[in-house]
Amino acid sequence: MKRGSQASDSTLAPSRLERRKAQTRQKLIAAARVMLAADTAAQASIQEITDAADVGFGSFYNHFSSKSELFAAAVDEVLEELGELLDQLSIDVDDPALAFAQSVRLTLRLCRARPQTSAVLVRHGMSYVDSTRGLSPRALRDIQAGMASGRFTVTEPLLARAAVSGAVLATLHLSLTDPSLVDDPACDQLAEQLLRLLGVPAAQAHTLASTPLPVAEMPAQG
Amino acid sequence: MKRGSQASDSTLAPSRLERRKAQTRQKLIAAARVMLAADTAAQASIQEITDAADVGFGSFYNHFSSKSELFAAAVDEVLEELGELLDQLSIDVDDPALAFAQSVRLTLRLCRARPQTSAVLVRHGMSYVDSTRGLSPRALRDIQAGMASGRFTVTEPLLARAAVSGAVLATLHLSLTDPSLVDDPACDQLAEQLLRLLGVPAAQAHTLASTPLPVAEMPAQG
Repeated sequence: MKRGSQASDSTLAPSRLERRKAQTRQKLIAAARVMLAADTAAQASIQEITDAADVGFGSFYNHFSSKSELFAAAVDEVLEELGELLDQLSIDVDDPALAFAQSVRLTLRLCRARPQTSAVLVRHGMSYVDSTRGLSPRALRDIQAGMASGRFTVTEPLLARAAVSGAVLATLHLSLTDPSLVDDPACDQLAEQLLRLLGVPAAQAHTLASTPLPVAEMPAQG
Repeated sequence: MKRGSQASDSTLAPSRLERRKAQTRQKLIAAARVMLAADTAAQASIQEITDAADVGFGSFYNHFSSKSELFAAAVDEVLEELGELLDQLSIDVDDPALAFAQSVRLTLRLCRARPQTSAVLVRHGMSYVDSTRGLSPRALRDIQAGMASGRFTVTEPLLARAAVSGAVLATLHLSLTDPSLVDDPACDQLAEQLLRLLGVPAAQAHTLASTPLPVAEMPAQG
């Protein structure tokens, strides 16, 4: 009976080694997220990262081939949590166009406050544009909802998502090279412009992108 | 007298060594452009590039730190020539909104036909968004002309250029990952959407992005 349950463990549940490997990976990502949030990621050495994560130096390369790959994985997690946050904040918003505008405005505002996270986002940007996690599937869902409700006149949601995502990424890039340009009104203007791009008439786009925003903070250690 | 003219040569004109260095660099870039156009750039070794350029293997690193840097310089040249071409093609177009739409439609069509050029463009994309050469300064000029003529309602041309450039780059990225999606009508739809983004009313944007295009080819070896 004991042997039987052990055999079933090894098929169904991850082995102790696998759990430990996953824990090490998670510790590295958590340390990377702290460094991104503290703006110390760019200058950190791999030794400093493994020290901060409290794992052996050698274990780094069991999980990531470079610092860049680790930070990309960390930003991937941040974006997934940011996506969950944006979903919660728009749960009572019935109009897909309003939900879309709110998410764009908050995404830009929150990322702008985290330059190193934004730098990773911009550097790996195109790989996030069609990711199956984070903001990308949510943007697609919101565009499709707006098309279904008749709010958006675009006809191919994947093309529209590419245009919208690229515009947001390039604006984030601008917020790093020329921070004074990308202030709160600029974030709202981009949302307004993107609503027009999607087919919302100008006057409505302006109203939708000017409504008060819910209070939000970047997910912890992002 | 002879010594004097030599001294003046060395101050005013590039030395023979400098001219030769510039020639070597130009040969490397020309070889890279041929490879990009022939879709053989991605798999080429540095040895193959220096052989094709007819320069010594060692001279590569006097000019570029990596293959990626060389191909970025090659695409920089392609974009400058593409910009000159687009300028010529719109020289008789009085309406800045029509000139802008024509340039977007042609840029997407021409780049789509050169996947490896597009791949370099997308990979280094954000550095082209605010470049002082190529398409970037021309996009800014066209946006400012549209604002001056009252065609475009955007108020900050640098923000508008970021949005527009990012949208074009992400669409090029999509043309690499999902080529069937980015056909001619899709290129025209993006131009129409970007005109709306800039503030052109929907019906006018549709007309402007549907006019017949001049015949154009990608600059040679681009």
